[in-house]
Amino acid sequence: MTGHVVVINPNSNEAVTEGLRAALARFAWPGGPRIDCVTLAEGPFGIESQLDSDSVALPLARLVRARTDAAAFVIACYSDPGIDACRSVTAAPVFGMQEAGVMTALARGDRFGVIAIAEASIRRHLRYLRRLGVTGRLAGERPLGISVDESARGAGTFDRLVEVGSALKGDGADVILLGCAGLSAHRARLEAALSVPVIDPTQAAVAMALGTLLAAG
Amino acid sequence: MTGHVVVINPNSNEAVTEGLRAALARFAWPGGPRIDCVTLAEGPFGIESQLDSDSVALPLARLVRARTDAAAFVIACYSDPGIDACRSVTAAPVFGMQEAGVMTALARGDRFGVIAIAEASIRRHLRYLRRLGVTGRLAGERPLGISVDESARGAGTFDRLVEVGSALKGDGADVILLGCAGLSAHRARLEAALSVPVIDPTQAAVAMALGTLLAAG
Amino acid sequence: MTGHVVVINPNSNEAVTEGLRAALARFAWPGGPRIDCVTLAEGPFGIESQLDSDSVALPLARLVRARTDAAAFVIACYSDPGIDACRSVTAAPVFGMQEAGVMTALARGDRFGVIAIAEASIRRHLRYLRRLGVTGRLAGERPLGISVDESARGAGTFDRLVEVGSALKGDGADVILLGCAGLSAHRARLEAALSVPVIDPTQAAVAMALGTLLAAG
Amino acid sequence: MTGHVVVINPNSNEAVTEGLRAALARFAWPGGPRIDCVTLAEGPFGIESQLDSDSVALPLARLVRARTDAAAFVIACYSDPGIDACRSVTAAPVFGMQEAGVMTALARGDRFGVIAIAEASIRRHLRYLRRLGVTGRLAGERPLGISVDESARGAGTFDRLVEVGSALKGDGADVILLGCAGLSAHRARLEAALSVPVIDPTQAAVAMALGTLLAAG
Amino acid sequence: MTGHVVVINPNSNEAVTEGLRAALARFAWPGGPRIDCVTLAEGPFGIESQLDSDSVALPLARLVRARTDAAAFVIACYSDPGIDACRSVTAAPVFGMQEAGVMTALARGDRFGVIAIAEASIRRHLRYLRRLGVTGRLAGERPLGISVDESARGAGTFDRLVEVGSALKGDGADVILLGCAGLSAHRARLEAALSVPVIDPTQAAVAMALGTLLAAG
Amino acid sequence: MTGHVVVINPNSNEAVTEGLRAALARFAWPGGPRIDCVTLAEGPFGIESQLDSDSVALPLARLVRARTDAAAFVIACYSDPGIDACRSVTAAPVFGMQEAGVMTALARGDRFGVIAIAEASIRRHLRYLRRLGVTGRLAGERPLGISVDESARGAGTFDRLVEVGSALKGDGADVILLGCAGLSAHRARLEAALSVPVIDPTQAAVAMALGTLLAAG
Repeated sequence: MTGHVVVINPNSNEAVTEGLRAALARFAWPGGPRIDCVTLAEGPFGIESQLDSDSVALPLARLVRARTDAAAFVIACYSDPGIDACRSVTAAPVFGMQEAGVMTALARGDRFGVIAIAEASIRRHLRYLRRLGVTGRLAGERPLGISVDESARGAGTFDRLVEVGSALKGDGADVILLGCAGLSAHRARLEAALSVPVIDPTQAAVAMALGTLLAAG
Repeated sequence: MTGHVVVINPNSNEAVTEGLRAALARFAWPGGPRIDCVTLAEGPFGIESQLDSDSVALPLARLVRARTDAAAFVIACYSDPGIDACRSVTAAPVFGMQEAGVMTALARGDRFGVIAIAEASIRRHLRYLRRLGVTGRLAGERPLGISVDESARGAGTFDRLVEVGSALKGDGADVILLGCAGLSAHRARLEAALSVPVIDPTQAAVAMALGTLLAAG
Repeated sequence: MTGHVVVINPNSNEAVTEGLRAALARFAWPGGPRIDCVTLAEGPFGIESQLDSDSVALPLARLVRARTDAAAFVIACYSDPGIDACRSVTAAPVFGMQEAGVMTALARGDRFGVIAIAEASIRRHLRYLRRLGVTGRLAGERPLGISVDESARGAGTFDRLVEVGSALKGDGADVILLGCAGLSAHRARLEAALSVPVIDPTQAAVAMALGTLLAAG
Repeated sequence: MTGHVVVINPNSNEAVTEGLRAALARFAWPGGPRIDCVTLAEGPFGIESQLDSDSVALPLARLVRARTDAAAFVIACYSDPGIDACRSVTAAPVFGMQEAGVMTALARGDRFGVIAIAEASIRRHLRYLRRLGVTGRLAGERPLGISVDESARGAGTFDRLVEVGSALKGDGADVILLGCAGLSAHRARLEAALSVPVIDPTQAAVAMALGTLLAAG
Repeated sequence: MTGHVVVINPNSNEAVTEGLRAALARFAWPGGPRIDCVTLAEGPFGIESQLDSDSVALPLARLVRARTDAAAFVIACYSDPGIDACRSVTAAPVFGMQEAGVMTALARGDRFGVIAIAEASIRRHLRYLRRLGVTGRLAGERPLGISVDESARGAGTFDRLVEVGSALKGDGADVILLGCAGLSAHRARLEAALSVPVIDPTQAAVAMALGTLLAAG
Repeated sequence: MTGHVVVINPNSNEAVTEGLRAALARFAWPGGPRIDCVTLAEGPFGIESQLDSDSVALPLARLVRARTDAAAFVIACYSDPGIDACRSVTAAPVFGMQEAGVMTALARGDRFGVIAIAEASIRRHLRYLRRLGVTGRLAGERPLGISVDESARGAGTFDRLVEVGSALKGDGADVILLGCAGLSAHRARLEAALSVPVIDPTQAAVAMALGTLLAAG
């Protein structure tokens, strides 16, 4: 099999890229496609505002254009920043975390709930779901109310995830989607605690990317 | 990694199961999850009518219940027969070909077109798409107008696929979904001919199943 | 007028069939179409699970195929089990209780509320409403939280119906649909208590079936 | 059984009312509810324009308010003129032909086609279907292109109905709804010619009205 | 510039027309289009019921037809009474307050909330929003629970507006639409208090009407 | 009245800005809000590709942030580039041409048709309409098939506009939206030729902006 999957962390926080590498290590096998996690040097330290998100579209497109060795791309930020720009400069598939996460959730349950990091991003996510044409299957989106930084490390994060996940089940969700790239480490344990599938969007996007490569043989 | 993927051909035609094995061989790797293609002995020789589809729900559920060694299931028939029944008897994920194929197509393009084998199945497919809540992104579904049998072997099948795929592009599709398990062999060549992504639903479902296993570690 | 309406109770509980006969007696008149309530001998004693529902599709289709004397069929279980199978084997109209009940409710009010027997069936009902394409007019569905058996007999059932119906009015419903074949006896009194139309789905389906026969003259 | 069904022809053309009486005679039986077809004296001779339609709202409401002997009302014009006004002045159910016809069609087929008399009324009908929330199941609406007068009498009407109905089947319709009160006489023959159910909206509305009375016992 | 904007108060309460004149004075400038606020003499004193609304359709159409000097019309009642009738009798644009208000709100925020005067009118408004095809962007509609009369004068009205507006923000609204012609005087202050755009539908409709005239030059 | 409307041409072609000034001159009056048409110096010479569109988001946001003297902004490119970025950096209203044009069209007709310059941009427009939640009222979008440059000057442009506009009427449109900032000069004449309202999106956005200022008094 030729080519590999380039997973782009669109912020310049190398620790986040390291986290992606750790979370995605299990998606690689000897002789299989290489999963190359890279940092967007030009990105902001974190992508929290609309401007942060818009600021990475062109740098991402340049990076994608430069990586002619890649067989598939994953943009590892839940906002799917620059996804249209990246798609316009390559024939290789470009997967957005939110898009791939949502579509994977829809193949696992009937109505999905999303755990967002912050209240402020929910409106942007919902607007994007309208564009995706799948709001009819959304049970709800609720915020953790913690910072991205805390989300990866905070001791209380897991308890809060269970709390928010349970509330989403009450809203009618039978599958939960993690609305951030930095929550992967909690996925399996949260799934066990909630007794419904929990989808990590980074893993969902990488699985789709691998599927594309395997199908291409 | 424990467990493997059980891909069930719900008809009793062993040649179809052999075809699945051939198409999915590329999804296996040394040390990776086993992909076990099995035939539903109780199934009809082909699933073409509504009764054929309904007739396999209980046998499929029995098979699923019996395979406690499986970590994920794929129902390898585009009608997704018995999917609700199967899901009700196992905690393992159960992927339907149509559902997984549609969701994968939605992560690759903006509006999808479906190539059905027969005119007669289109109404059933559209009804299912309404249940999936994604009709807003359907560009169209068009029939090949050949039998399932011909679809795998017929010399003219590829030309007809190109013709129907082109018509769907004219309908606005920028990604094409093959509406049958038996068309896998044409996928890559058709993608090259049409210059838009072509999704094989069996492969899409197996990629999602593998993603589940890899994520579970 | 030739032909008659065959109302099929898809479970094997003859008492339920008796209840149907009682509830539908008022839909017959001298010289009018005969309303023939029959029990599906092969059915489970009650239809509560997805497997129960799937298990009756083929037996129902066999029964429908055998009753060449019928001019119309009604499947008297709110899940509309086997409706596609039955429709595929007869040219006579086949009415599902849920479908006919929902459509009748939509001709009586602006947004409908559904009283389900059990919480567990609500997700299945909502999925079916998506297939029907009418979720935009659903105000809500709420469970009674009692067993099917209790629903017909329990002394507290009526009070609970009023309570749940009132909650649905608070959700915005101006017409209430009973989500079970066994609640007919409460319809008129509940309508008086709630001051909005209350639709019994069995009666709605039989009215549509009679309409078909009367129109055919 | 007390009360009866008042079917109101909102135009002042008594011949149309006579036609309704003839078409609905088969919906009456000895001892059953009386079906009382009445002419709205204040109505225009025909309802073709928006002003015609708006002009009958108050006279219809007055008539409805005056008929305290009625147990149910049917407004026998496909535009459903004055339906909100009528509903606001009576506790008895008020059925609109278009609304009842559409809902009945949705219980008979998957996607419905409508045969309109005139091109000019199609936009108004579609706007009303959006209000009904069921456009997702419309296959199409096509005009006969003849006058209301011709529609009842013209020799070529039937041939044109078959032609338009066939076109609607090509659009994906598996049930046809007649978009006018004056086409009842063609229903059965057209159904035979098209091999799909053909719904006469007057009969559909009256069947629902009878269903309400029979349910009330 | 020739022609002017005729704003019609469809009720016969001249004080309401005076209020419109006051609220719209700021939309006129020397040499600009005249904004002519007129009272519908035949209208009821207030439009609160469905019958009130239906009663003005024909008189409005007559007034519109008579005002051949007008270049655009605004119907200044949130129910948009008679809008179809008026449009059918003139080639000049006819703006409805609800329609123009909703469309303007959709250009200012992502999801809109509506403050209705009375609970009783909400169902009618929602039905109209379905016809407009924009319910997917409605966050909610909530009543002030005061009379139209109070709404313009009552001392507690503003506090109640803030309360209801805040509740709508909690429902997800990021733009608020005033659901009545008589609340204009509160708009600016409410916008300041809620920190989201507040749309007065009369002003929105007049702005659109002026836009039409300015574009026509 | 304080403040004025800043209309930003996001490409660096000063001739386009001149064209905007000419088209919008009629929206200014002595003593009224100033309409200030400015060129985005950092913009590409034309905005045709996705990258062109993404490239102006940050420069637009900087310009918006710098113009603290503005009371409202209009982004004068049909793609609404950078609209989310601009809105995130100012409390003043920011109008997008497409968004404002669509909403104005929805207040003028029942189903709208869009005339795009190029086939290539239609998919992007439709995706945006899904985000706006109004696809249910789209009759169709069709391309002129000429360059942006030609669109403003070409002799055959008008004939082609009539041709495409007529085709959209055939698709069911009763209002036409011009899908480009450079077609303003044709609006009035095209409206006369097609006999349905023709909306120029720049004028629609400026009218909404003026409405905001006039309402603020």
